Amino acid sequence: MKPLLFEPVTSPYLVPFDGSFRIAHAPTHPSGSARPDKNDKNDKNDKNDKSDRPDKKDNLKALEQAVEQLSKLQGKLYADDRTSVLLVFQAMDAAGKDGTIRSVMSGINPQGCQVYSFKAPSDEELDHDFLWRIQRALPERGRIGVFNRSHYEEVLVVRVNPKFLGGQRLPRHPRGPEELRTLWDERYESIRDAEHHWARNGTVVLKFFLNVSQAEQRKRFLERLEDPEDHWKFNAGDLAESDKWDAYMEAYEAALRATSRPWAPWYSIPADSKSFMRRAVAEIVVGTLAQLDLRYPELSAEETAGLAQIRSRLAAGQ
Amino acid sequence: MKPLLFEPVTSPYLVPFDGSFRIAHAPTHPSGSARPDKNDKNDKNDKNDKSDRPDKKDNLKALEQAVEQLSKLQGKLYADDRTSVLLVFQAMDAAGKDGTIRSVMSGINPQGCQVYSFKAPSDEELDHDFLWRIQRALPERGRIGVFNRSHYEEVLVVRVNPKFLGGQRLPRHPRGPEELRTLWDERYESIRDAEHHWARNGTVVLKFFLNVSQAEQRKRFLERLEDPEDHWKFNAGDLAESDKWDAYMEAYEAALRATSRPWAPWYSIPADSKSFMRRAVAEIVVGTLAQLDLRYPELSAEETAGLAQIRSRLAAGQ
Repeated sequence: MKPLLFEPVTSPYLVPFDGSFRIAHAPTHPSGSARPDKNDKNDKNDKNDKSDRPDKKDNLKALEQAVEQLSKLQGKLYADDRTSVLLVFQAMDAAGKDGTIRSVMSGINPQGCQVYSFKAPSDEELDHDFLWRIQRALPERGRIGVFNRSHYEEVLVVRVNPKFLGGQRLPRHPRGPEELRTLWDERYESIRDAEHHWARNGTVVLKFFLNVSQAEQRKRFLERLEDPEDHWKFNAGDLAESDKWDAYMEAYEAALRATSRPWAPWYSIPADSKSFMRRAVAEIVVGTLAQLDLRYPELSAEETAGLAQIRSRLAAGQ
Repeated sequence: MKPLLFEPVTSPYLVPFDGSFRIAHAPTHPSGSARPDKNDKNDKNDKNDKSDRPDKKDNLKALEQAVEQLSKLQGKLYADDRTSVLLVFQAMDAAGKDGTIRSVMSGINPQGCQVYSFKAPSDEELDHDFLWRIQRALPERGRIGVFNRSHYEEVLVVRVNPKFLGGQRLPRHPRGPEELRTLWDERYESIRDAEHHWARNGTVVLKFFLNVSQAEQRKRFLERLEDPEDHWKFNAGDLAESDKWDAYMEAYEAALRATSRPWAPWYSIPADSKSFMRRAVAEIVVGTLAQLDLRYPELSAEETAGLAQIRSRLAAGQ
């Protein structure tokens, strides 16, 4: 038995498995810098953008090719019906999760793809352990599941805002920083164990952290506020969370370090350039799925003969 | 933070956590022998049994007391609404799972108790990993969940009958005994990890192997066939499985060794005497729940004052 379903795609954005990830060194822009590139307009109408900047053109073309390949691979995944794929997206607000999911998955037959957006947990969900609602939403064999936010919220937004733990009615409410640290460590372990179990049982797990800079985020917030059609995307809470930037970066660093593993790798994708981010995600997904041993179901000689008979009958108008 | 919600109840039937469990040494009868005691009639109408055999009388009385305590504890568990309890029952056919669940849980408010009987998995269930359907059925906080058969079927009946793996559409079908051994080891690990996660997040997990002897099982089969009202309980497949007795005992031994842990202990309960078995299970459940720090929700001074006001209004007929 091969130890894993796939080898993580080689990429400068692959989060190492040895806990050495440093968010301060993780680029938010493809050039490697954390500052947004002025030439990349990050507008929502990429197709109308007549900019002849070669990078962006290249990115759009490469994205298109990857989406086409992905569509074919997904058809095979569906027919093979043994493996499922789980794509997890986590990011700060306005990093581009929704747009990336839309761009990368738009070529896919919706019957083979399930997107879940995880919001604040319901009362019924809080009545169970924090992985319960996640596991219920896992993709079936042959399907691609996309998590727009995920179980990682439990070690990101909850870690930055531990007041949310109050609503979780834990058997023992952690008191003081040491007990809190134990709680996060236990959650990382639970997540690692669960993802390992999913992987062993046929789920390809890929996780994307869309790494936007705070400056770029603020710029996008401003754009939303300037365009009345985009007002609905903004809520005051987003800015409050943005103000806790350093705490969030610390939480992301700790979570990615603790949970990037060969069977469920994290990729930290520069998100200050939308076209680059979308291309990078699509290519990693395609590069992973292309490795799977996907096969159309084979018919036995008997079944093939049976089909030939039916074909003859239909052709004879019977 | 206490490391665990409870300490496993001290009992000669507690399966040790160090992998030293030997099924050949595990008694099927309270006397310690594997032979059924002729005085214990194992009939279905215990209450009508006028036998004055002291052991049986004692057992029935002790069971009654334990059920009463359990009913009180369950009311508190429900009000406290932080902890859930999961009781797992596994056994060979005719060992007495259904009767034990009925006897032990009969005093419980059904609103606070959910019994799941796991049969052969459905197509939808096979489309996910083997823990998926189990996790969906986990009890909510404040509730007692009872699993009549469970995820352990995946390392018991499936291990004895590996042909069932064919229907599971695993990403890699194991070939040969070594790959099969790896598969079982991975399943034990998945089960250990999942139960550890449940325990850390507020579920008390107790697991009961009702250990019947093959001779007693055959006797009970015969009784079922002799009583027309009991015919429905018997199916020919049961005998076929009984014929694989040694393979099953090997599978039980391996599973209990690999998965009895302080946060999710197994108890191997002698099942040749029904009255003893039911008493032993009830007392272990009560002994465990009695340790939990269950509290009725406390009202703040303000809330109490508010209630006093309402009481006055109601009393004044307003």
